[in-house]
Amino acid sequence: MSSSCPLPISQTDRVLLGHGSGGKLTAQLVEQLIVPAFSNPALAQLDDQALLPAQAGRLAFTTDSYVISPIFFPGGDIGELAVNGTINDLAMGGARPIALSLAFILEEGLPLADLRRVIESAQRAAARAGVPIVTGDTKVVGRGAGDQIFINTSGIGVVPSGIDLGSAHVRAGDAILLSGPIGDHGVAIMAHRAGLELDGDLRSDTAPLHELAAALLEVCPEAHAMRDPTRGGLAATLVEIATRRNLGIEVDEAAIPVTDPVRGACELLGLDPLLVANEGKLVAFVPEHAASRALAALRAHPLARHAARIGCVTDNHPSVVELITPVRGRRLLDLPFAEPLPRIC
Amino acid sequence: MSSSCPLPISQTDRVLLGHGSGGKLTAQLVEQLIVPAFSNPALAQLDDQALLPAQAGRLAFTTDSYVISPIFFPGGDIGELAVNGTINDLAMGGARPIALSLAFILEEGLPLADLRRVIESAQRAAARAGVPIVTGDTKVVGRGAGDQIFINTSGIGVVPSGIDLGSAHVRAGDAILLSGPIGDHGVAIMAHRAGLELDGDLRSDTAPLHELAAALLEVCPEAHAMRDPTRGGLAATLVEIATRRNLGIEVDEAAIPVTDPVRGACELLGLDPLLVANEGKLVAFVPEHAASRALAALRAHPLARHAARIGCVTDNHPSVVELITPVRGRRLLDLPFAEPLPRIC
Repeated sequence: MSSSCPLPISQTDRVLLGHGSGGKLTAQLVEQLIVPAFSNPALAQLDDQALLPAQAGRLAFTTDSYVISPIFFPGGDIGELAVNGTINDLAMGGARPIALSLAFILEEGLPLADLRRVIESAQRAAARAGVPIVTGDTKVVGRGAGDQIFINTSGIGVVPSGIDLGSAHVRAGDAILLSGPIGDHGVAIMAHRAGLELDGDLRSDTAPLHELAAALLEVCPEAHAMRDPTRGGLAATLVEIATRRNLGIEVDEAAIPVTDPVRGACELLGLDPLLVANEGKLVAFVPEHAASRALAALRAHPLARHAARIGCVTDNHPSVVELITPVRGRRLLDLPFAEPLPRIC
Repeated sequence: MSSSCPLPISQTDRVLLGHGSGGKLTAQLVEQLIVPAFSNPALAQLDDQALLPAQAGRLAFTTDSYVISPIFFPGGDIGELAVNGTINDLAMGGARPIALSLAFILEEGLPLADLRRVIESAQRAAARAGVPIVTGDTKVVGRGAGDQIFINTSGIGVVPSGIDLGSAHVRAGDAILLSGPIGDHGVAIMAHRAGLELDGDLRSDTAPLHELAAALLEVCPEAHAMRDPTRGGLAATLVEIATRRNLGIEVDEAAIPVTDPVRGACELLGLDPLLVANEGKLVAFVPEHAASRALAALRAHPLARHAARIGCVTDNHPSVVELITPVRGRRLLDLPFAEPLPRIC
């Protein structure tokens, strides 16, 4: 079809409303810009669904939309974030990711160079993680009806037998492990938005966690739950689980790793690192007897060299998360009504 | 968590930016408005991924974002459309849909009553089709950075053994069947936007096609391909397949069913029903020897009583779709550069 197109993609430099119309412009955008970047047999069929071979095992299925602003930020961009984020949601269920979808909602007027950059970044992230993008969709909305690029990534994974993770399995006595310093993603975005020039290297921690999760489950298949503390930060993850399970959680504030640049930026920006989104960290709830080997497995992985045991689950104070402060005081960890970080992912 | 919320969902009537923040407002929105509507065990876990039992058979995987404007229209709304559309993309691959995801991008200020109406409609559509919504996501963007509601639905299906559909299988000699009158969805939306008050009953044809597709495959497992002619209409479907397969297609214009109200509205609005989106129709490419029984199976189903055989695939004029006009003339069917119907789905 491309040979008969009067306006090759190379002759326009912005997304047009017609790129979403189902006419020739749509075909051009998909066939010239999007599909070549993600070359794989399932996608190349260009049917409305991808076919995957039969899988032995339970399936994990997840979806996430990404509306982060700005779309390019220190340490990553919306394309890489969308791929890693959905891989991580699968990995937190103990699943090996096998396929991703990628759906764009583009705003009319978006520079095609920006779209190309995001596509290439998503493709690099998918290739690095070894997970193919097998199906997709592209819609265009008029100026002012969207904001540059929104991306939805959904994903399918396969859960190995013997693994059964979920917040419903968390119980009193569980040790709580954290894979590394918190706050990097949210603080990098907020500092960037505020135009802060800081000495330290503030970058999003966006990373795919499926290999780290698999390494942990390899030595600790009896783990109860894993979560990646994204929107709402570590606090939201802990409060959610304490509330839903009607259990108490005690966390040693001094044990929670926070880098100096993040701590400094948080002071400047008035943020609490506990409430800030992470995009490359996991929290694991594991039986006490397995905590040491699980922690060792985390620390042996490049993404979790600074993993730490940060607390435990308890029958005391149901539904309450208590933070034990460095001076052995206790404070209640609660969620803000609305965290002041819109469009952080 | 709801008991400690200072502002129950019932005390605000619009979507706030904070509903997407990961704080208490987010928890309220999800737990009070969204999850109860879709009650099923996988979703109720509220983990970041849904777990599905192991499936015997190849998997189909699809994604679609819906940005239709207006979100409520004659014959449906964006919620029902999103559920049916993704079911249909699975069904066109011959798959039995087993699970859907539902991801919202909401604009700040959206009336919660509208969101509730869309959620209830999506749930009704999912229940009617017998396909559970097992995982979801909700993001909020500021006023003017979105437009009311965008929805992404992704879906997983299982392809029965013996079924192998795909545009790559279409070959010369195939008969082309169409399940019913075309143009209803696109024309209903455009007439509604134009404020036309027409005598006839112009309504979107949005409908789930998985049972119709299964009925066809039951008697015609050797079918080569099925497509639902959505964006770009029947013309886009035929041109795409002719071009990709480098085959000719001949279509008898008089055989293509179009209702009188749609024909009338098309004349008023300057639209060609061949180019207009459908949301409840399918096109099947079947071997000639199976065409009669396949057509009979379609006509026996309530969604396809007016199914018709509209043409055939040929080795003549590769990559060209020829329309045989009622006076036995021939005209080339081509796609417009950009179809003038933005945000039709």
